[in-house]
Amino acid sequence: MNAQTCLQLLREIKDAAFATVDENGIPQVRIIDVMLVEEDALYFCTARGKDFFRQLIQTGQVAITGMNRDFQMIRLHGKVQKLPDQKKWIDRIFQYNPSMNHVYPGESRYILEPFCITTGQIEFFDLGKQPIYRQSLSIGQSCSEKKGFTITDSCIGCGHCSIVCPQHCICEGSPYTIEQSHCLHCGLCAEQCPSLAIKRKREV
Amino acid sequence: MNAQTCLQLLREIKDAAFATVDENGIPQVRIIDVMLVEEDALYFCTARGKDFFRQLIQTGQVAITGMNRDFQMIRLHGKVQKLPDQKKWIDRIFQYNPSMNHVYPGESRYILEPFCITTGQIEFFDLGKQPIYRQSLSIGQSCSEKKGFTITDSCIGCGHCSIVCPQHCICEGSPYTIEQSHCLHCGLCAEQCPSLAIKRKREV
Repeated sequence: MNAQTCLQLLREIKDAAFATVDENGIPQVRIIDVMLVEEDALYFCTARGKDFFRQLIQTGQVAITGMNRDFQMIRLHGKVQKLPDQKKWIDRIFQYNPSMNHVYPGESRYILEPFCITTGQIEFFDLGKQPIYRQSLSIGQSCSEKKGFTITDSCIGCGHCSIVCPQHCICEGSPYTIEQSHCLHCGLCAEQCPSLAIKRKREV
Repeated sequence: MNAQTCLQLLREIKDAAFATVDENGIPQVRIIDVMLVEEDALYFCTARGKDFFRQLIQTGQVAITGMNRDFQMIRLHGKVQKLPDQKKWIDRIFQYNPSMNHVYPGESRYILEPFCITTGQIEFFDLGKQPIYRQSLSIGQSCSEKKGFTITDSCIGCGHCSIVCPQHCICEGSPYTIEQSHCLHCGLCAEQCPSLAIKRKREV
């Protein structure tokens, strides 16, 4: 699974959820069509009158998620840019998404502005598999984030974490190790470790 | 369409997108199951180790959206509460959502904490109809928000707004009026009004 495949999966899901932060710091989310995916970039559009438009312009940030019928979930958050050359992009978007003409017929399409995400973090999460499978990826100049938990050298090898893990994804060793690609990030191992050896990666 | 029906629709969609704001003010969104809907309240759960859990506790705010196969979209944002009596609620949630046992078998379910939304704003949006149909509702002690546009007394009755409206939802009159239930909030009428008579409701 690479970044391009993940973006393509969002394009196939099409009606994805787009989250922003409003002027009061409150999360807002709505379903928006993923209009185009090309060369590691995702394109969408919205109308200049909408709160969504204002939030994109004000914050420059968006988070997107969608899940397909096989319970494969994509999460993406990143920087959003309003594109210059509005008419070219809106025409291109309508060419690939002709049903948009029912909502914005004729010239009214030009109330829409095209946006693009070229930098961000992607998380692929397959809940249809047992154990679950996750993978982190990035697009553009974005460094991958530290998420989840890790077992430090304070591990005493008691194996309690391995017993309680709901996905059975902790392997024996010195120290024990978490198979990151199967971890739910639920935190049960960290709570139950008698030597407090399991830490959040971001706090290590 | 009332609030209870909207929440029930989210329960039927089941895999809805839940948006939060992280510690850096960045929007985050993921697919979460709507676990229960009872008496104008929506219930879900998440694990104590997850970033989602921390964001819920820190901000007390969440926004949810989902769309069904008939292109009916529900948007909800409101205050979120962690519920006391954790075991009672988690057991109840697992009773109604038995597939949760595959992800969190046995006692591992108690790494989950139950949350509830009892106060918030709902927006129902039917994109399957022409013209589109929207309705705002609230649950709990929440006042409904002002969204969209209104035509003020500065209207000179030229009818230009009515011609450009992509959904044909502006009616002749003195002043002209917007049929709010069919309005996209695209803002094209406001941009094109020669007498600047059309204002955002929140700025009026």
